Amino acid sequence: MSLIVQKYGGTSVANPERIKNVAARVAQYRQQNHQIVVVVSAMSGVTDNLIKMAKEILPLPDEREMDMLLATGEQTTIALTAMALQARGVPAISLTGAQAGIVTDGVHTKAKIQNITPKKIHELLKSGKVVIVAGFQGETPEGQITTLGRGGSDLTAIALAAALKADLCQIYTDVDGVYTADPRLVPGARKLPEISYDEMLELASLGAKVMQSRSVEFAKKFGVVFEVRSSLNDNPGTLVKEETKSMEDVVIRGVSLDKNQAKVTLSCVPDKPGVAARIFKALADAAINVDMIVQNVSPGSTQTTDLSFTVDKADLLKANKVIDGIKAEVGFNCIRANEKIGKLSIVGVGMRSHSGVAAKMFDTLSKIGVNIDMISTSEIKISVVIALEKAEAAMKAVHTAFLG
Amino acid sequence: MSLIVQKYGGTSVANPERIKNVAARVAQYRQQNHQIVVVVSAMSGVTDNLIKMAKEILPLPDEREMDMLLATGEQTTIALTAMALQARGVPAISLTGAQAGIVTDGVHTKAKIQNITPKKIHELLKSGKVVIVAGFQGETPEGQITTLGRGGSDLTAIALAAALKADLCQIYTDVDGVYTADPRLVPGARKLPEISYDEMLELASLGAKVMQSRSVEFAKKFGVVFEVRSSLNDNPGTLVKEETKSMEDVVIRGVSLDKNQAKVTLSCVPDKPGVAARIFKALADAAINVDMIVQNVSPGSTQTTDLSFTVDKADLLKANKVIDGIKAEVGFNCIRANEKIGKLSIVGVGMRSHSGVAAKMFDTLSKIGVNIDMISTSEIKISVVIALEKAEAAMKAVHTAFLG
Repeated sequence: MSLIVQKYGGTSVANPERIKNVAARVAQYRQQNHQIVVVVSAMSGVTDNLIKMAKEILPLPDEREMDMLLATGEQTTIALTAMALQARGVPAISLTGAQAGIVTDGVHTKAKIQNITPKKIHELLKSGKVVIVAGFQGETPEGQITTLGRGGSDLTAIALAAALKADLCQIYTDVDGVYTADPRLVPGARKLPEISYDEMLELASLGAKVMQSRSVEFAKKFGVVFEVRSSLNDNPGTLVKEETKSMEDVVIRGVSLDKNQAKVTLSCVPDKPGVAARIFKALADAAINVDMIVQNVSPGSTQTTDLSFTVDKADLLKANKVIDGIKAEVGFNCIRANEKIGKLSIVGVGMRSHSGVAAKMFDTLSKIGVNIDMISTSEIKISVVIALEKAEAAMKAVHTAFLG
Repeated sequence: MSLIVQKYGGTSVANPERIKNVAARVAQYRQQNHQIVVVVSAMSGVTDNLIKMAKEILPLPDEREMDMLLATGEQTTIALTAMALQARGVPAISLTGAQAGIVTDGVHTKAKIQNITPKKIHELLKSGKVVIVAGFQGETPEGQITTLGRGGSDLTAIALAAALKADLCQIYTDVDGVYTADPRLVPGARKLPEISYDEMLELASLGAKVMQSRSVEFAKKFGVVFEVRSSLNDNPGTLVKEETKSMEDVVIRGVSLDKNQAKVTLSCVPDKPGVAARIFKALADAAINVDMIVQNVSPGSTQTTDLSFTVDKADLLKANKVIDGIKAEVGFNCIRANEKIGKLSIVGVGMRSHSGVAAKMFDTLSKIGVNIDMISTSEIKISVVIALEKAEAAMKAVHTAFLG
């Protein structure tokens, strides 16, 4: 008998019919005598509708009241899911985040889990019940309802798995698992049976939107092994866990392409201390997330430098405005923006112990005539910025070169 | 400075626009320096939609889970209402039933309020906030979410007014107040400036559906004076309170007509002890609510009697079935049902001190050729069952006779 935590996202519980399907799957596991805790999100569309109503009333709603409002979404799903299990004759009970003992800090709309008291869930499991917990929400020690922000339901599942010392944590979603590349773009992409936390983190931050980095980081910190798998079939998914020796034998775990970045270049920036800090502080103050940063010496000058960085396309206008506002102070020459770029990355913990990975990637790109615009590397990742029009072909070529 | 509890029903908060109107009214009162507690229902249609989803999953949903589900309706409204007040610059905070200190027993879907700890609300009022409380819901001492059943939000408002020792409790609804008769049926009907609890109770139980009896009983028990008024205009409503000497000067407070009853007659029922008990126990066991009961001696027999009673039209089929099931045991002759009846009632505490009220009513009916089928009286009420086709004309005539 194992204790399993299963998490189902918004599309998996989008309507009563799908909730019945979730119940069927949970019932299957329970027939094998497992203890099961189910974490569910709001039915897809519900949260958006609540936000829409709130914004009709107040463009920037109070965050405490926003939490009060949004927490109803998951509360609705847990009740319906418990009923769907009861309809199959499976004893089940729903718990709000607060009832499940999930205590958070008081930072409304993006609260952090402080601790979980799993006593009540253990008691209910012992009494033979499937326990359905509302994802995404918790309660402060003072009894205020909070929500955990984006990816919050995944976080609830992983934190519960840690607190309950679960044997297995399954994240059910609308994809089959983590692939070597986006299967819609790369026909030869394969599902990975396993991946390390760090690789998953790099892929998450690279736009392979299976999960938010935050939940993966939490899992890594508390050593929670979890499986990403589809709620639409019974295929095994991808196991995410601490890296093992054998993982390093595989040089590259996956290839990802992010088409949502734009590149900003400032030319003839004075090459003196404090300038870069000034620029990126201004961007940070405006809550603009900067991804890659590359600095080159300007041709024909030793006093100035060219500085390039990438931001989300959605933030490009705002970034331009912020930079323009400090032009006089910083003293650069001009700003250029380029939205027609793609960021191609390869990720793998095996990179650490294998040399020549970067060389092989650059060589592959040069062979198909792709020019590299920016390069950025981490211990287990190499990213290049290339022209958007060639990005998909480049992704296929790199996938073939490394992953066959 | 007064402490005012205001309750707004589902149609008053049906969408963000109407919630803004509620906020405008609350803000008006607050400008006069009153402390205000607002109790709101679920937005109209929301509860029905939740019930519909639940029934798609399970025809008879578990009641604990039903409460978990339905409680989200009011929670949504409180958050939006708090936002609407904040949008007007009025400090406001929302509280679930549990957060407001409303403790109930554990009878899910029709819980009774056990006690209210008003400390937190008092603190929040003192800090200058308008406090928005979710109607219809509470929490057991063990932390289970409960709902109070039909009319639950009115009950929340009246119970809070009692616990907070409020100076005034206003029940905002889609009617202007309590009338001497239904103004859609009787053109001469007038709005009553005040009415006693007992008269209101009789009218509530007679189908004048302004409020559930339960809330009026609670108000009577705890001496909560409340006002029923419209959320669509600023007209004064009807004050409901303990009867005063002056109230007795008015013989009849109002006339009401209930067209939702059906009459069942059992003929030649053995006239011996225990027979009536057997019949009405069977109906009670089937949760059928019996209203009027009249027993007559059958013509030409001293051994048997005719027994008539009225039930909701919706329960008529079920009632027939139940009675048929005990036919052999009880030994009556036949069942007859009549759906084409109307129950016409006059209500007034003044009846106690004025004689001849019944005679005047019967005389009025006979003058317009209306035959009386059944009669039932209480201390402050006289009800007659008459043919449905003549019911509205009879109502007008009786209204004219007593109320001009």
